[in-house]
Amino acid sequence: MKIAFLFYEGMTALDAVGPHEILSRLPEAEVFRVAKDAGPVRTDCGLILIADHPLSAVNQADILLIPGAGSATTLRDFPEVLDWIRSIHKTTTWTTSVCTGSLILGASGLLKGLRATSHWAALDRLKLWNAVPMEARIVEDGKVITAAGVSAGIDMALTLIAKIAGPQFAKSMQLGIEYDPQPPFDEGSPRKAEPVLYNALKSRMVAAFEKV
Amino acid sequence: MKIAFLFYEGMTALDAVGPHEILSRLPEAEVFRVAKDAGPVRTDCGLILIADHPLSAVNQADILLIPGAGSATTLRDFPEVLDWIRSIHKTTTWTTSVCTGSLILGASGLLKGLRATSHWAALDRLKLWNAVPMEARIVEDGKVITAAGVSAGIDMALTLIAKIAGPQFAKSMQLGIEYDPQPPFDEGSPRKAEPVLYNALKSRMVAAFEKV
Repeated sequence: MKIAFLFYEGMTALDAVGPHEILSRLPEAEVFRVAKDAGPVRTDCGLILIADHPLSAVNQADILLIPGAGSATTLRDFPEVLDWIRSIHKTTTWTTSVCTGSLILGASGLLKGLRATSHWAALDRLKLWNAVPMEARIVEDGKVITAAGVSAGIDMALTLIAKIAGPQFAKSMQLGIEYDPQPPFDEGSPRKAEPVLYNALKSRMVAAFEKV
Repeated sequence: MKIAFLFYEGMTALDAVGPHEILSRLPEAEVFRVAKDAGPVRTDCGLILIADHPLSAVNQADILLIPGAGSATTLRDFPEVLDWIRSIHKTTTWTTSVCTGSLILGASGLLKGLRATSHWAALDRLKLWNAVPMEARIVEDGKVITAAGVSAGIDMALTLIAKIAGPQFAKSMQLGIEYDPQPPFDEGSPRKAEPVLYNALKSRMVAAFEKV
């Protein structure tokens, strides 16, 4: 089973690494970390990940995963990346995104008429790509699965491996990564957060998405 | 504020990248990704991260974070790494670990008499280093904070930034990474998992830790 992760400059590392920790442990997983060019990719917090393959080396995948970034849609300056996404999507069983990775799927023209989610601060922008924004942690429409912001990729990956390898496998993986979340606060979604925090953060994040 | 992440061959990427996503966004964070040698570090799922600095380039840190690995204690073959950990620990405000990273703290002699946690399958092994194993997601004893398996690093990092930058900052960060966990199953801890899954996974994982 070929699993392709798209890497790009400025991506949010956890968007990819959360699901990578889970999907790469699927039996017979063959993982391809792909970027415009193979080599180092600087993420938005300075951590550098290595892309093993350039776009041209990967022309098929069973699962495609697109991580997000505050600057996700700067990828529209790289039409060859969007071309690659469209081309791989034709071959996938599952095309997935985490956070604002859905804006990249949108910019690639793959969300037209589909229900999808994104980081809460970017959700409205899905309409720009004729997608139907859904306030949900994971949205599945046909073979396209989109996850909400950053940490939602972990929930999405567990959901996906349950479909692929069965719920027992997924539960064992959940236990393996001891995913029994106990955040010290319960303010991880707009509906739970204090309005003053929500409004301040939304202003900052929307400004970052302005380039979309 | 200097934050040092120890990277090493075979480490579990998410152990480090979860907290990195949070700690590196602290105001005035200066992040050092450190390994025995600077350069590429292959994690246990094949993803390669770059260590920016060799041990010799970093001699102080306000926060030290040690990620885990199935093979965590192969680090005991590298006494210079354990020496470095001991030396940095003398300078820290907080010394932290995720998953079996606590076994590395233990092997460095830093957990003697302290309460600590680890991945559930490795918890007993803390006794080898004269630590007091605690069945808890996060354990704080003095300036040492240990987290349980893999994903617990995210909860630990949020707890830590609340101490450092206040609860409002931590809540805003939680909202920023949309950390409103909704795992598809509720089997992420030994107490919640089906016994048959737990026993099978424990056998496999304990075998991996045998080299401790």
